[in-house]
Amino acid sequence: MMNVNHERIILSHGNGGLMMHELIENIFIRHFDNKILREQTDAAILKMDSSTVAFTTDSFVVDPVFFPGGDIGKLAICGTVNDLSVSGAIPLYLSVSFILEEGFPLKDLEKIVLSMKREAQKAKVRIVTGDTKVVDRGKCDKLFINTAGIGTIRKENRPIGSGKRIRTGDKILINGNIGDHGIAVMSARESFNFSTTVVSDCASLNLLIQKILNNCSQVRFMRDPTRGGVATVLNELVRKGNFGIEIDEESLPVSEGVRGMCEILGFDPLYMANEGKVMIVAGARECDKVLSIMKGMKEGRQSAVIGEIVSDHPGKVVLKTITGGKRIIDSLTGEQLPRIC
Amino acid sequence: MMNVNHERIILSHGNGGLMMHELIENIFIRHFDNKILREQTDAAILKMDSSTVAFTTDSFVVDPVFFPGGDIGKLAICGTVNDLSVSGAIPLYLSVSFILEEGFPLKDLEKIVLSMKREAQKAKVRIVTGDTKVVDRGKCDKLFINTAGIGTIRKENRPIGSGKRIRTGDKILINGNIGDHGIAVMSARESFNFSTTVVSDCASLNLLIQKILNNCSQVRFMRDPTRGGVATVLNELVRKGNFGIEIDEESLPVSEGVRGMCEILGFDPLYMANEGKVMIVAGARECDKVLSIMKGMKEGRQSAVIGEIVSDHPGKVVLKTITGGKRIIDSLTGEQLPRIC
Repeated sequence: MMNVNHERIILSHGNGGLMMHELIENIFIRHFDNKILREQTDAAILKMDSSTVAFTTDSFVVDPVFFPGGDIGKLAICGTVNDLSVSGAIPLYLSVSFILEEGFPLKDLEKIVLSMKREAQKAKVRIVTGDTKVVDRGKCDKLFINTAGIGTIRKENRPIGSGKRIRTGDKILINGNIGDHGIAVMSARESFNFSTTVVSDCASLNLLIQKILNNCSQVRFMRDPTRGGVATVLNELVRKGNFGIEIDEESLPVSEGVRGMCEILGFDPLYMANEGKVMIVAGARECDKVLSIMKGMKEGRQSAVIGEIVSDHPGKVVLKTITGGKRIIDSLTGEQLPRIC
Repeated sequence: MMNVNHERIILSHGNGGLMMHELIENIFIRHFDNKILREQTDAAILKMDSSTVAFTTDSFVVDPVFFPGGDIGKLAICGTVNDLSVSGAIPLYLSVSFILEEGFPLKDLEKIVLSMKREAQKAKVRIVTGDTKVVDRGKCDKLFINTAGIGTIRKENRPIGSGKRIRTGDKILINGNIGDHGIAVMSARESFNFSTTVVSDCASLNLLIQKILNNCSQVRFMRDPTRGGVATVLNELVRKGNFGIEIDEESLPVSEGVRGMCEILGFDPLYMANEGKVMIVAGARECDKVLSIMKGMKEGRQSAVIGEIVSDHPGKVVLKTITGGKRIIDSLTGEQLPRIC
């Protein structure tokens, strides 16, 4: 057994030899433990129960690696689980690949691995294959994690991520407060001089999404508003078809903490990153049903209908402000917050 | 269209907004172009023709990113194609995830992407999903690439990566010279003061491997000897069962260039990384057939039988030296070459 309390990552942990073998056995295999991973073959061999498979990947470089409400490991699991879920898939298997900086404390690595384990268990996914690389001190920032994931798709959910089903009159919903992740990560940075109680919303949404998909037939589109926030998803959406979007500012769920920080710092919550939010476009007739399912689950207590698909101003996202005015919400152009996920 | 000749990666290329969208459209989608990727959904939706799926991942941090015989992009495709292939799978789909350092020249990124495109075409795999992150200058070293891959497995090839089929008397083969990748990458480093003509063996081996699996029924095990080299694969193998391995030094294919460099630098070719090599354990009766198929293909001209599975010294890899002596080949313990892949 390694003494993780005093040890640090050294270059030999990445050389393919005994030290790497020990690291993999004593931290990764031990905590992520399952039958498939334990085989330690070059590729995991999986039995799928559907011939339609969803496949996704994300690298995580969040700074700092620990922040209020989560850490880079939890983020890496949630991010990939959510990317599969919003595509209409049931997430099943994840790969995890670490790039570690020489000198990174093993106890922090183990803390992150335990956090990944917990989140994977919660989301009912298995980590079945992985990779470990080590770079010399100063050649990466502590650690970067890549997760790729695969899941199966039921026939009726197939085009849910494409936006092709969207029609005028459809409603746009979100499962709660926006901008929490962005503000929480920013507040954890050394350079941040304000105090806030905002906590990242980082969460796996597969169970919420599956419940909606199992009970509703008019879900036209789903997407998780991560980097670039709600505004970016809406702008990508209007580029997909001949329709516009109208958002009602008054209905946008934003916590007091996020609203206050955004005012101080000059940010707009619409562009702030979220890691536990899903935007859903649903047929008007089923809107109430979707909303009530969302509100009935822990990850959806603050759910709201925030806008609708309109035939006016095609290709544009328009915000109806609280004061009764209207303004166009553009795609993000300048710099927002680097390394937010 | 971007002017890739003068531009460099900036933080906004990773913020989820318009700049990132442009980078993805103009470099990644344009070159990796295929119908699935073009959908740009959070997850690629794939139709599989078998319910048994192989899944693997690797991150690449090679230093330098361009080296004789390849670059980090080619390596990222070959590495994942080969991991799937040695598991008995037909590689089909890859994900590609970039971590880019602020300031990295776009023309170098495009060169790497074109190299990935070429290698993917050669290996008949499609890049169907991806991710792009940007970190501030000094927080990673130029770029890191993660590729994950999935492929399908024919029923009869299922336990090929596990080593469970291996029996005493089986022969061990390799498809050519060892150590080329390790020496080539090292020679490309600024600190390297010797001149060498050694070129990386970096190559996708799926077509070679599929030809063997389609024609031979006694292939017991395959593995690609990357980090840690041939010696590491052999040591992992003897840990799997109640047998020993005997390697014949005289039969080990090593080029003059690699042999010379290893002598000067005090390295052992058995521990040097390869990126276009596969080690195959085959039943003795089929050994000649496997060897002749390997020699008949470009990636296998220098193939050789290098040893066999023995009942003596279980758990140990023994080298019969050219001078007639015997010595134990241990797992790699000390430092070899960091960031070789």
